[in-house]
Parts: sequence; structure tokens; C-alpha cells
Amino acid sequence: MHRLALSAVLVLAALSAAADPLPSWKDGPAKQAITGFVTDVTKAGGKDFVPPAQRIAVFDNDGTLWIEQPMYTQLAFVLDRLKVLAPAHPEWTEQQPFKAALEGDLATLGAAGSEGLLQLVIATHSGMTSAEFETIALDWIGAARHPRFQQPYTQLIYQPMLELLEYLRGNGFKTFIVSGGGADFMRPWSETVYGIPPEQVIGSQIAQRFEVRDGVPVIVREPEVAFIDDQAGKPVGIQRHIGRRPILAFGNSDGDIQMLQWTTGAPGPSLGLILHHTDAEREYAYDRESHFGRLDKALALAPENGWVLVSMKDAWSHLFPPTQGSQPDE
Amino acid sequence: MHRLALSAVLVLAALSAAADPLPSWKDGPAKQAITGFVTDVTKAGGKDFVPPAQRIAVFDNDGTLWIEQPMYTQLAFVLDRLKVLAPAHPEWTEQQPFKAALEGDLATLGAAGSEGLLQLVIATHSGMTSAEFETIALDWIGAARHPRFQQPYTQLIYQPMLELLEYLRGNGFKTFIVSGGGADFMRPWSETVYGIPPEQVIGSQIAQRFEVRDGVPVIVREPEVAFIDDQAGKPVGIQRHIGRRPILAFGNSDGDIQMLQWTTGAPGPSLGLILHHTDAEREYAYDRESHFGRLDKALALAPENGWVLVSMKDAWSHLFPPTQGSQPDE
Ligand SMILES: [Ca+2]
Ligand SMILES: [Ca+2]
Repeated sequence: MHRLALSAVLVLAALSAAADPLPSWKDGPAKQAITGFVTDVTKAGGKDFVPPAQRIAVFDNDGTLWIEQPMYTQLAFVLDRLKVLAPAHPEWTEQQPFKAALEGDLATLGAAGSEGLLQLVIATHSGMTSAEFETIALDWIGAARHPRFQQPYTQLIYQPMLELLEYLRGNGFKTFIVSGGGADFMRPWSETVYGIPPEQVIGSQIAQRFEVRDGVPVIVREPEVAFIDDQAGKPVGIQRHIGRRPILAFGNSDGDIQMLQWTTGAPGPSLGLILHHTDAEREYAYDRESHFGRLDKALALAPENGWVLVSMKDAWSHLFPPTQGSQPDE
Repeated sequence: MHRLALSAVLVLAALSAAADPLPSWKDGPAKQAITGFVTDVTKAGGKDFVPPAQRIAVFDNDGTLWIEQPMYTQLAFVLDRLKVLAPAHPEWTEQQPFKAALEGDLATLGAAGSEGLLQLVIATHSGMTSAEFETIALDWIGAARHPRFQQPYTQLIYQPMLELLEYLRGNGFKTFIVSGGGADFMRPWSETVYGIPPEQVIGSQIAQRFEVRDGVPVIVREPEVAFIDDQAGKPVGIQRHIGRRPILAFGNSDGDIQMLQWTTGAPGPSLGLILHHTDAEREYAYDRESHFGRLDKALALAPENGWVLVSMKDAWSHLFPPTQGSQPDE
């Protein structure tokens, strides 16, 4: 579809948004599950009414709110940062997993496992102040481009999810990110991109220390992991940070199982959703075999838990926000 | 003053609140500092304007929002819980610091230091699920009475601080608790009592673990400290949880020094405040020598940092909320 025609479609979609708060969602079971749930919990006097203060909705980030292929965006950040830092670390040319990372040897990197990955994260995410890291993350996210779409990663966010976040907030929900990724990597841009302020971003964190340096108070990022917000860490992160149980959770991989269990295993109304990447043409198609965002056990657990599978290909009419320009399928 | 007359005064105070958002604050430098600051940062186009999203205000709890004498309220909770749990722990009658705690031997307890206190906290705050602990905390806070005022602790909160919280929120601020006390001890009642939802309560935390028990997902509280949100831990807790710097901080003891430094040491407008307990008649008078809420170094640091001292006796016309009934001075 020509760009101008696309714009017209999107303007029309925006105009009809008052009638349809989720214009990029096709009619179908996923959309019905969402709107039905929101209608039920907001209906004053209804049997499933939930007071606004308890309308907590949690969203995974990678592969749920934005793209995570061909690799997690934060891993692309790590690899780029390693190149910037390499001249000061000549030992990396001999030392694994740094050598593999610098050479783009993903096979060796994969073999180094999560332990190896953690070494790379620590090397690139610590040693500076919180303010310095914020600048580094913001500069990178502004400059980096996705290898396939040649767009900034913050454009490769899912328009239907933006609409869902907005729809939930418009219905008194408070929206949180609960991600295995680094909280401080997401926070500098989460408000602009998702409308989610930094204080509603829960993620993995490295240790931090306060000190007064030459009279200036700073927070220093230390080479040690403080919290991994993935798998069983997700409900723990939710409890630590929010202190109450969500009533809606949206994820896309096995790392979200426990968050979904914690959300939908509570008494009272709740909704669990799983985005299934089924759209090789417009984005990617992957599940059980993927290195990033593997969706295997969660697929098996979905039916018995009533988790709603959202097939990207079937459920979404548009993928990325209009400012991104063209989309492969349009 | 007779209770009925007091009520009339308070109704009148409420009626004039539209004109004066801080009716329990006497005119003077503290009140002027607060209203001047709020006017400056909310004035669109003004040189000190701060966008609403960045209007983060952090409040210490013990001795700042509520009473902390003759001992921290959470310590009273710990001592009561130990009595409840003692029958299942016959070894405590011989074992310190449990023996001292059960006998009310505060001297021995004090000698056991923070290490000893931590043992008591862990014994009373772990081993149950998060839901069970919430019930325990709520039941206790509803039943316990302050030894001097014979009121629930949630009535021994400071009316001027309630007004300040409300005033700030009315001016686009987001209000947070940043306390050395346990987050999960405060969260069950913070919204009702302070209008601060659990997700805006930052405090010390013990380790937690997610598990599915006979098909039911639970979070189990573990006998290990995960985070101490005091002194240098306060700015770290703020950074971990909020991810941006506050522009207003209110504390009352040396434990708040780093939070005040982190807040007022930032570029741009900021306000640091210290409540000074100077009112033995209506509440308590203490600072440098107190075991709970010692205010010593922070007093010395206040002038050079521009931190505003709020003398309870001089700055506040009322201490406790009206529903509490009578106040010693009225
Ligand atoms: Ca994911
Ligand atoms: Ca205090």
C-alpha cells in the first residue's frame, strides 16, 4: 500500500477510535477476551467489579511490547558497547566470551550460556554513575537501527499494544513493565515510547551504591547482579515493587509462566495473555525452537490455565506505529 | 478544649482549606518554604517549572509521617509477634536476643544492636506467604494501641503531613514513602491512611520466593534480608524503585541524610525538609540523644544544604487527625 494511502487509513482508524479503542486489533477471540474483561471489571455493581486501585496490569517487554528478533535489543546494545569499550580492554581479544562477542561469533557466545552473557552485561552496565548510564542508553537507542527494518528500535514497538496500554489506562488501570531486561536500560525512554513512567518499570538490576564524590552525590553502578526479573523472579519482582497482585498479565515466552500463574491464580477476575509470533512476513514466526523468547511450556500450559493466545498474524491488522512509515505488508 | 469545640474548629479548618491548603501549618518559614517551592515548580513558563512527571516527592515514615516514640511502631509489632510465636519456640526463653525481647528487657535488647534486632525481625517477618503476612500486619495494626495515647498507631499520624501529601498530589506530585521500615509492614494500610498506594512504598525487604504449592501460586517470605532501605540505602532504594531523582524530600533523622543529599544535590529546583520533634507536651521532644530517630548530624548539615527545619511545636497548629478525638493541647 502506498504510504499516503496508509496514512489515510490510519487517520480514519484514529477517528473511529472513540468507537473502537483497539483499532489495530482484528475482531476475534483475543480482542473479545480483552474488551469483555475490561467491561466486566469496570462495571460498577457488577459481580466482577474491581476497584481502580487494584487494576494492575503487567506487561513483559521483549517480544510483547517490542521486537526481540533477531536478538534481544539489549544484547545488540551490549555488543555495540563492547566495541566502544574494547580499546581500553586489549585483553578482550583473547578472553572469552568477550572475544566471541567482539567477533560476532554467536555460536561461541551461545555456548557461553547465561553465565557468559552476564559477564558481558556486567562489563557494559557497571562502572559508571546512574546519570552516565542513562545518557549511554538514550544515545544508543536514538542511534541504533534494527538490522532488518532499518528503523530505531523504539519504532519497532507494537501499535496494538500501545492501544491496549492506552485502553487499560483509560479504564483506570495502572500499567507496568515486568521484564527480564534491565530496568535502567528501559526507563530512560519507557515514558515517551509506552507512556509508562520509570517508576512503573520493573526489570533486572545490577547493584548500586550511593556516594558523595567531591561534594556531588552520585549513584554508582557496581559489577554485581542485584536481581534477575525473569521466570520465578517476575512474581517476586511484582511483589517487591508493587505489593499487590496484578489482574492482567501479558507475556510471550516461557519466562512469563510464573507471572501468568501469579496473576491468573488469584481469586477474583483476571486475564492472562500470550503473544504468539506467527507472522514471518510482517515480523517473525517463532516459538518452541527460538533462542530468544522461547515459547514452549507456556503454550502447553495455556489451555488449562485459560491464558489467551494472541496470534500476531491473525489478531493484529497493523504491527508498528504509523510514524514508522512503511510496513512490509502494506 | 472540649471535644465538640475541637470538632467545630476542625470543620471550620476544612471549610477554609480551599483558601489554605495547609490549615494545620502555622504561618512561618517552613510553610512559606513549602508553598513558595510548589508555586515555583508548578508555574508554567517560570524559570523553576518542573513537568508533572518529574514532580517526585519522597517521605520518610517513622517520625515523619507518624509517631516513632517510645519505640518504632514496627518494633512494637515485632515484640508482640514474638509473644504470639513463643509457645512454638521454647528455646527462646534461654536464647538472646529473644529472651530479652520476651521479657521486655530493653537494655539487653539495645546491647544486641542492629544485628540482634535483625534476628527478631527475620523471626517474625518470614516463614509465611505474602498474603499471610499481610493479614498478620493488618490485624495487628487494627488492634494495637500506643502506650501513651491509647490510640491505634494509624491515628497517630501527623495531620499537617496528610495535608502536605494532599497538597502536593493536588499540584501534580507523585508521593512516595522511603522508609527504613519494612515495605510489607506499611503497604497493607498506606493507601487508606496516607493515600499512598503500595507500589509507592519503598522500604526494607526480606527475600521472597515464588512457588506453586499444591497447584496454588504463593510467594514465600524467606529468613534473609534482601534490602535495607536506610541511610545510603535510601537513595539506592529510590533509584532502584523510581529511577529518577526526587525534587522534594522530607525526613526527620540522620537516616535521611543521604536521601536529602540525593534530592537537593541535583541540578534544578529542589526542597529538603527535616521534622524536628520539639513538642514534649503534644508529642515528644528528642534529637541528638534519642535511640529512635536520632537527629544529630543532619541538624549540623541542614544550614549549609539549605534543608528547612520544621519545628513541630512552632510549625504545627494540630498534630493528629480529628477522628482521633482529643489532643493533649486542645
Ligand atoms: Ca518476552
Ligand atoms: Ca524517621
